[in-house]
Amino acid sequence: MTEPVVPAARKAYLQGSRPEIRVPMREVPLTNGDAVVLYDTSGPYTDPEQDTDVRAGLPPLREAWIAERGDTAPYEGRAARPEDDGRGSAPVQEDFLPRRPRRASGGAVTQRAYARRGRITPEMEFAALREGVAPEFVRDELAAGRAVLPANVNHPEIEPMVIGRNFLVKVNANIGNSAVASSVEEEVEKMTWATRWGADTIMDLSTGKDIHTTREWILRNSPVPVGTVPLYQAVEKVGGDPAELTFEVFRDTVVEQAEQGVDYMTVHAGVLLPYVPLTARRKTGIVSRGGSIMAAWCLAHHEENFLYTRFRELCEIFAAYDITWSLGDGLRPGSIADANDEAQFAELRTQGELTRIAAEYGNQVMNEGPGHVPMHKIKENVDLQQEWCDGAPFYTLGPLTTDIAPGYDHITSAIGAAMIGWHGTAMLCYVTPKEHLGLPDRDDVKAGVIAYKIAAHAADLAKGHPGAQAWDDALSDARFDFRWEDQFNLSLDPGTARAFHDATLPAAPAKTAHFCSMCGPHFCSMKITRDVRRYAGEHGLAEDEALAAGMRAKAEEFKAAGGRVYLPLSPGS
Amino acid sequence: MTEPVVPAARKAYLQGSRPEIRVPMREVPLTNGDAVVLYDTSGPYTDPEQDTDVRAGLPPLREAWIAERGDTAPYEGRAARPEDDGRGSAPVQEDFLPRRPRRASGGAVTQRAYARRGRITPEMEFAALREGVAPEFVRDELAAGRAVLPANVNHPEIEPMVIGRNFLVKVNANIGNSAVASSVEEEVEKMTWATRWGADTIMDLSTGKDIHTTREWILRNSPVPVGTVPLYQAVEKVGGDPAELTFEVFRDTVVEQAEQGVDYMTVHAGVLLPYVPLTARRKTGIVSRGGSIMAAWCLAHHEENFLYTRFRELCEIFAAYDITWSLGDGLRPGSIADANDEAQFAELRTQGELTRIAAEYGNQVMNEGPGHVPMHKIKENVDLQQEWCDGAPFYTLGPLTTDIAPGYDHITSAIGAAMIGWHGTAMLCYVTPKEHLGLPDRDDVKAGVIAYKIAAHAADLAKGHPGAQAWDDALSDARFDFRWEDQFNLSLDPGTARAFHDATLPAAPAKTAHFCSMCGPHFCSMKITRDVRRYAGEHGLAEDEALAAGMRAKAEEFKAAGGRVYLPLSPGS
Repeated sequence: MTEPVVPAARKAYLQGSRPEIRVPMREVPLTNGDAVVLYDTSGPYTDPEQDTDVRAGLPPLREAWIAERGDTAPYEGRAARPEDDGRGSAPVQEDFLPRRPRRASGGAVTQRAYARRGRITPEMEFAALREGVAPEFVRDELAAGRAVLPANVNHPEIEPMVIGRNFLVKVNANIGNSAVASSVEEEVEKMTWATRWGADTIMDLSTGKDIHTTREWILRNSPVPVGTVPLYQAVEKVGGDPAELTFEVFRDTVVEQAEQGVDYMTVHAGVLLPYVPLTARRKTGIVSRGGSIMAAWCLAHHEENFLYTRFRELCEIFAAYDITWSLGDGLRPGSIADANDEAQFAELRTQGELTRIAAEYGNQVMNEGPGHVPMHKIKENVDLQQEWCDGAPFYTLGPLTTDIAPGYDHITSAIGAAMIGWHGTAMLCYVTPKEHLGLPDRDDVKAGVIAYKIAAHAADLAKGHPGAQAWDDALSDARFDFRWEDQFNLSLDPGTARAFHDATLPAAPAKTAHFCSMCGPHFCSMKITRDVRRYAGEHGLAEDEALAAGMRAKAEEFKAAGGRVYLPLSPGS
Repeated sequence: MTEPVVPAARKAYLQGSRPEIRVPMREVPLTNGDAVVLYDTSGPYTDPEQDTDVRAGLPPLREAWIAERGDTAPYEGRAARPEDDGRGSAPVQEDFLPRRPRRASGGAVTQRAYARRGRITPEMEFAALREGVAPEFVRDELAAGRAVLPANVNHPEIEPMVIGRNFLVKVNANIGNSAVASSVEEEVEKMTWATRWGADTIMDLSTGKDIHTTREWILRNSPVPVGTVPLYQAVEKVGGDPAELTFEVFRDTVVEQAEQGVDYMTVHAGVLLPYVPLTARRKTGIVSRGGSIMAAWCLAHHEENFLYTRFRELCEIFAAYDITWSLGDGLRPGSIADANDEAQFAELRTQGELTRIAAEYGNQVMNEGPGHVPMHKIKENVDLQQEWCDGAPFYTLGPLTTDIAPGYDHITSAIGAAMIGWHGTAMLCYVTPKEHLGLPDRDDVKAGVIAYKIAAHAADLAKGHPGAQAWDDALSDARFDFRWEDQFNLSLDPGTARAFHDATLPAAPAKTAHFCSMCGPHFCSMKITRDVRRYAGEHGLAEDEALAAGMRAKAEEFKAAGGRVYLPLSPGS
C-alpha cells in the first residue's frame, strides 16, 4: 500500500449493480463532521485493506466481465522475438506468469459496439458511477462517438473511466524511458506516482531498452488505461531507420502491444505525403517524433503513408481487442509561430476522414491536438476538431501559450490546457517542467500532474460541469471558517499546503487561530467580515435587516445541505 | 551590483533626446552572432558600471526633469510622528539624508495633465523608448486616460514606464512585512529580487512595525514605481480599530506617503454603505483587507465611506504630487462562488464614477479588479470595467480560476491572469505559491514573478502586441538549431533551464549535440525534419520542388532579417 496523498482521507467505494462494481473514491473527512468525496485515480495502492505487489500485478477486475460476454477467446498469441525489447537489450524478460491473450472471436468487441447495440456494460456502469451520471448517458455518448472508454480486453486490471467533452476533463501523464536514461522499476514507480496525484491515463513512451518488458510491468500494475505510440517500438525493430519501416513490422508491433493490453494507441495516419512540404516554411518544422518518422518514410519512398493506405486493416485489429484510436497530430506546431497553419489543419481534416472510417468498424476514436498555440488561436483548434471529426474526444498536448519559458512549461501549457479544456477538449496530456530540456523525474511528474489537475478542474468549472464547484465551495467554506486542517486536506496537495502554512506560523495553535500569517491578527479581513455580520445581526438598521436576513438564509442553507457534501455525485446540486 | 539573471546578458541603453534619457535594456548575445534585446526592469543593479549602495539609494534620474518644469517647489514637509512607524516600533529611523519634499506650486503636475496640454515629458519619451513606440502615442494614451505613467515628483529614482492596454502587459509584485514576520532589509532585498526577475512595479503592503522606515528604504532604492495601500498604515495609527479611523488620519497618511514618493495608491473609495449587505450571502464575504476595514467603518458609524464623500479632497492631493489612483476593489470575490456578483459589480460602477471625478483633476487612474473568477466569467470583468471606467487601465489580482489548489495559486491564477491580460487588463498583480497560506519568501517571490511574466507575455502574444513574438521566435529558432546556450539565455530563467538540461545530459558536449535527452539521438524529430529538408533539396520531386522553394525562401528571410533581432523595438516587424 502506498501512502495516500491526503493522510486524513479514507478510501470509499460506490457499490454498483454487481458485487465487483465497487467504484473507488477519495473521501475527505472534515473537522465539522461533513465529508467531501472526490474522484480517485490512485487505484488499489491507496486502500489499506488491499495488498499490492508490483511483481504479482493488480487483480484482474474485469476478467469475468470480459469472459462472460462470450465474444472473445484466448489464443496462443504472438511469440516473443529478440527485437521486441529494443536494440541491444537482453532477451525479453518474463517476470509475469505467461498469459494467453484474448481477442474477438467474431465481430467488434469494443465498448462502442456494445453501446450501439444498446448494451450497458459493467465498464460503462463503473465509469458512470465515477462521474456521477446515469449509465445510459455513458452508453449514449460512447455510441455517438463523443466519448471513449479505453479498455483493451487484455488489460482487465483497469478501473474503467470515460473520456469525452460531456464528462470531467481528464489528464494523461507521459512516462517512459529513452535511449539516454531510466529503468523499468523507475517507470512503474512513475506510473503509480502519477496516478496517485490524479493522472487519469498514462502513456508509456519508451524508446530505449526493454520496451516490451517495461510495458508489461506497467500494464500489469496500472489501474488506469495505458496508451502507447507503437511506431516508436516499430522503428527500433528496424534499427532506428525510418526508411526501413514496413507496414508488416508496424502491424506486428500493434498486435504485440494489443496482446499485452495497451488500451489506446497513437497512430500518425494523418501525416500524408502532400502535407510534408507544407512544413518546410515553418519555424520549427515537424516536432512530433511520430510525425517526423512518417514524413521521413514518405519522402524516402515517395509513397503515401502506409498507416493511411492500410488504415482499414488496423481498424480490424483495433476492433478485435478494443484498442482506442488516438489519431496522432504528427504535424502539430512546435512553436508559437507555427500554430494553426496549413500543415496542421490539413492533417486535422484527414483525422476527420479516418475518424469516420474507424467508426465503420465500431472503433473508439480520439483525436490528438497541439502543441504550441497562442491564446487567441486556441478555440479555433477545438471548434475545427469538433466539426471535422464529428465530435470525437479531443486530446491535446498543452498547448503551450508561449515559447519563452523552458523550465516552466507546465505553467505556459497549463494556461492553454485550461482554456482548451473549457472549450471542449476531453483529455489534456500533461507537460512537465522538464519539457524541451530533459527527462522528468519524480518531482517533475508530480508538478506536471498537479498543474494539469488545476487546468482540468478550472475547465470543469468553466464548462459548468455538474458538481464541479462543490469542491471549490467546500474548500472556500473551510477557508472562511478558519478550518485550516480541512483547507489542507481538501487541497490538491495537502502536504505542500500544510508545509507552506507552517513555514510562517508553525505552532499547532495557529492552525485553529482565527487569522492567518498574511495579515496578522489585527488585519484579518475574514475576521472583520464576521464582525460586520455580527454587528448587522445586533442592530436594526435598514441595510442590516437585509444583511441579517441573508445570514439567516445562509444558516438555513447550511442546515438544508445536511451533513455531507458530495462531488461529483450530486450532479443536480 | 547584483548578479544578472542572464549571465551572458549585457546591459544596453537606448539613447533618447537628452543625455540622461538612457533606457536600460537587456541584450542577450547569441552564439550565431545575433542578439536579442529585451525589456529590462532590474534597474542599475545589473549594470556592472554602476555602483549601487542600498544605504545611499539610487541616483535621482528624474530630479532635473521635475525641477526644470518649474511647477513644483520644495517645502518643509510634514513632521515625522511617533505613530508613523506603527504601534510598538522604535522612533522613526532616518537612515537617509533628510530631503525636502516637493509638491505642485500651482495646478496639477501629473503626467496626464502635461499630456493633455500636448507636452511630451522626458518620462513619456523614456517609457516610449522602452515600449518601442512613438512618444506621441504614449502622450495620447495618457491624455485619454487609457494609460498611466506612475511617477510621484518625490520618487525621482524611477526609470519611467507606462501601464495601459495598448502597451506591454505589466506585472506587479507585492512585498511588505506584516505583524507576524519580516524585516526592513528583507523587504528591500525582496524588491530588488522581484524587479530582477521582471516585476514592473512593486507594492509595499507592510502592516507591521517600521512601516514608514521600510517604505523609505524601498522608495530610495526602487527603480520601479512603488504602490501602497495607505489605509493599512492609517488604521495602525488608530490602534488597529477600523471604527476609530477618520478622514483626517487617512489624509495625513496620504500626505506622509506622498512626500516619501509613493507613485500609486490603492484607495477603497468604492466600498459604499449600501453595498455592504450585498456581501452577506456570499460564500467568503469580504476578503479585501481594505474593503473589510471600510465596511466595518461604514457599519460602525452608519455613515457613507469617507473616502467616497471626500474623494475630491484626495484628488487635489494626488494632483499636487502626481500620485496615480489605484481604485481598490474592496468587494472583490474571494472564492469561485462569489465571482461577478452584485456586490462586486456595484463597486465597479462606483469606480467608474470616481474615475471620471479624478479625471477632472488631471489625475492618473487605474481600476483594481478580482480576485477569484472561473474562466468563463473573466472576459465580462474586463468588458464591464472598460465600459464603465472609460477605458482606464485595469489592474487585476490574478484572478484565480479555482479554489482547490492552495500551494499552487501562482498557477491557478496565472491561467486567469493570462486570459484577463489578453482581454485587456493592463497590469497583473502577481500571486505567489504561498497565497492563502503564509508570507512569500525569496523563492516564492521569484516563482510568482516568473508565473506572471509568462502570463503577461502570453497575453502580449494573444493581443498581437507588435514585436512580442520576436522573443518566442528567437527562442524557437535556437531550439530548432540546437543552440542550447542560446535557448537557456533567452529563457525567462536561464539558470533553471540549464540545470534541468544538465540533470539529464550533464556533459558539456551535450550542449552542442544535435539531439536532446527527451528522444535520444535516434528519435530526434528536429533532426529528422532537417533530414526531410535535406532530402527534399537533393531531389527533384514535385512536392519537393515546393519544399525546396520554401527552404530557399526561408534562407532569404534569414538574410533579410539581418544580424539582429529586436524586441520590442521593431513594432512593425
